[in-house]
Amino acid sequence: MSTAWTARYARRTKGITSSQIRELLKITQKPGMISFAGGLPAPEVFPIQRFEVACHKVLSQQGAFALQYGATEGYEPLRELIANNMARYGIKASVENVLITSGSQQALDLIGRLFINAGDRVLVEAPTYLGALQAFNIYGAEYLSVPVDDDGLRTDWVESPLRSGPKFMYVLPNFQNPAGTTLSEGRRHQLVLLADKYGIPIVEDDPYGQLRYEGEHIPPLVVIDRENLRRDSGYSIGNVIYLSTFSKTLAPGLRLGWIVAPPEIIGKLAQLKQGADLHTSTFTQFVAYEVARDGFLDKHVKLIRQIYRERRDVMVQALTDNFPPTVTWTHPHGGLFLWITLPEGLDMQAIFQSAIEHNVAFVPGNSFYAHDGHKNDGRANDSHEGSRHMRLNFSNAAPEQIREGIGRLAKAVKKQLAVCGDTIDSKSASTQEV
Amino acid sequence: MSTAWTARYARRTKGITSSQIRELLKITQKPGMISFAGGLPAPEVFPIQRFEVACHKVLSQQGAFALQYGATEGYEPLRELIANNMARYGIKASVENVLITSGSQQALDLIGRLFINAGDRVLVEAPTYLGALQAFNIYGAEYLSVPVDDDGLRTDWVESPLRSGPKFMYVLPNFQNPAGTTLSEGRRHQLVLLADKYGIPIVEDDPYGQLRYEGEHIPPLVVIDRENLRRDSGYSIGNVIYLSTFSKTLAPGLRLGWIVAPPEIIGKLAQLKQGADLHTSTFTQFVAYEVARDGFLDKHVKLIRQIYRERRDVMVQALTDNFPPTVTWTHPHGGLFLWITLPEGLDMQAIFQSAIEHNVAFVPGNSFYAHDGHKNDGRANDSHEGSRHMRLNFSNAAPEQIREGIGRLAKAVKKQLAVCGDTIDSKSASTQEV
Repeated sequence: MSTAWTARYARRTKGITSSQIRELLKITQKPGMISFAGGLPAPEVFPIQRFEVACHKVLSQQGAFALQYGATEGYEPLRELIANNMARYGIKASVENVLITSGSQQALDLIGRLFINAGDRVLVEAPTYLGALQAFNIYGAEYLSVPVDDDGLRTDWVESPLRSGPKFMYVLPNFQNPAGTTLSEGRRHQLVLLADKYGIPIVEDDPYGQLRYEGEHIPPLVVIDRENLRRDSGYSIGNVIYLSTFSKTLAPGLRLGWIVAPPEIIGKLAQLKQGADLHTSTFTQFVAYEVARDGFLDKHVKLIRQIYRERRDVMVQALTDNFPPTVTWTHPHGGLFLWITLPEGLDMQAIFQSAIEHNVAFVPGNSFYAHDGHKNDGRANDSHEGSRHMRLNFSNAAPEQIREGIGRLAKAVKKQLAVCGDTIDSKSASTQEV
Repeated sequence: MSTAWTARYARRTKGITSSQIRELLKITQKPGMISFAGGLPAPEVFPIQRFEVACHKVLSQQGAFALQYGATEGYEPLRELIANNMARYGIKASVENVLITSGSQQALDLIGRLFINAGDRVLVEAPTYLGALQAFNIYGAEYLSVPVDDDGLRTDWVESPLRSGPKFMYVLPNFQNPAGTTLSEGRRHQLVLLADKYGIPIVEDDPYGQLRYEGEHIPPLVVIDRENLRRDSGYSIGNVIYLSTFSKTLAPGLRLGWIVAPPEIIGKLAQLKQGADLHTSTFTQFVAYEVARDGFLDKHVKLIRQIYRERRDVMVQALTDNFPPTVTWTHPHGGLFLWITLPEGLDMQAIFQSAIEHNVAFVPGNSFYAHDGHKNDGRANDSHEGSRHMRLNFSNAAPEQIREGIGRLAKAVKKQLAVCGDTIDSKSASTQEV
């Protein structure tokens, strides 16, 4: 079964195997399965009729352009709409600060491509978004992990790893995937000042920022950075690159994300994007523009917030009703995920298997931890820490399914609690440290 | 104007500058310009009404799936349609041999990602597709260039560079971009045997294969490879990876291409694609499937052939009518491009400037040559050779524009011929060596 190809893989692909989540999502397609595993939006909220109207308008009025090759930077009216939309959140950007990407996964890939040499370290949260690790791994990134708690990244633990000179920090300040936690305003200011002090820039990944269900909006790092730096030292371009996406507000099947950065960096990223896929689909960009325009996006986001807030509340209530006090969870103010902490000593693999037998799925926490190239004072979460956690998605399933699914999950967990009861140190779960 | 980011570019991005073509395409958007520069399909052939019907059907019947996240490998009915469609050309593939990519540019990127270590050499045609060089450059590829003539790649010059062990060969056998030439059937057999003899596999890039305007279909390398190898030595998977796209048959704005390879390699490529953009737009895949199905693609390709054949003939006639015999060109049997050879000694930059002043654009030939890391016996075309050539696209402009544009181009060239007349060795153009 040999071929000249299979002996020729590049070194960078060593150890690249199908992700646990990817394999897992296949299991979740079993009939009868209630899945809290994916990060899928609720399909009920897709504005399908508005898409129909938009497609008709785009094709009948601009078909020759919408189906043709387009500019690598993206469709200009869409870039402008994005810039205007972000101004609502204090982010001052104009067209030349915005690069359209094929989903925000491609934004991560282009950032890895532009900045990471093999062996460069990236400071990441523990836990962090798995897709970012996948994107950076291919360029030979190593990691410095710093834990998150209920107020997000432990900025009090950031300084020591910053001294060892990572290439950049990768942070999800809002309703983080997977932990659901939000970086507090105080810590945001601290982090931006530390970035400036050590000259270590920040990638701010914000796919969920608009999906806040309670509490006040907190300014993004990119806003704090520009305000601080402009005032203090005459910087005209900042140290924060900001990423977001339409995947959670319009539809992930479009594969439309964007990068906000100084024009020089947008120019470089566009050159790299040209080699990666020439440009993102002109058609989906035209359609997204027609769907989002005239204030629709804002109205639609309000609807999504309402639906997801209810689902979060249903899940939290079901967890409270079904789980013993030794099991704890985060209370996300937005986004799509809850993060469960189990008592130490349980066999997560056994819980996962048992859950699948009960027709309910989740993602085991250990998928979300970088393997640190350099140990961060031993304080970083390692995969053992990950083994106490489960990520639960609350956006995709309907409320009654959430109740049923959490009931099933509780059965699976309780079974393991009973099996391992004597080995569990129940105090270990009393602080909710994620 | 400093920022912590701009000092942090990865080494691989050194020398990555905006491509000449990209800058050039901006010029061609000047009003009144007739552009033969891009590789754009004629927008008149986009089946816009069928797209409208397809969008309506997809959204009204399958909106919840078409707008949701999808499988990295692609939408299965589309993969199956592609496999069935290729069977017409003798390519035996099933669903698990097909990976959907975000345009065939992404196919090239993923191949570079999976196979190229920094310093690896790739055997390419001289001239060759610029986008492939851009995709491979980022992974540190070096090149071994072998010239093409009217029968395509000079397979009689391939053996010596193969001995020096390139990672793979990159070949466009049908109506090559930029030269428009086609690899003869005899040379295809030779090339496949050489690949087997030296254990150097082949990437066969075939974006234009269905757009043949004269002559008989010639079996793709992937077909010859599988037939030969199966018969002779019990190989069950072959040495040729095959790429194609819907960009020239449906619409480039969809950004839909595909890779055909053994399932093991498709699996690896899908893992890498997951890190690059998760998956290609579900929506465009559903829509492309609805547009292409039930035999529409075949009927539509016939229409495109008819229109482009006429445009090619008009361009060839206009060239014959307007240019002196010292200027020669290829006679492509399909595809989108003609390749012009000028007498030696002309200043191509001056011709280009003069053409722009006359409101007509083309791409100067030197864009299409790799800079060889290792000289190939001095026989490879270098950028000096490129400076005698122009690439002309004949698919995008309407016949009357083609006539007008070639007239303008002739004026620009004749002006330079007059200026440089005494320095030109007219014999040098008597053999049409591209």
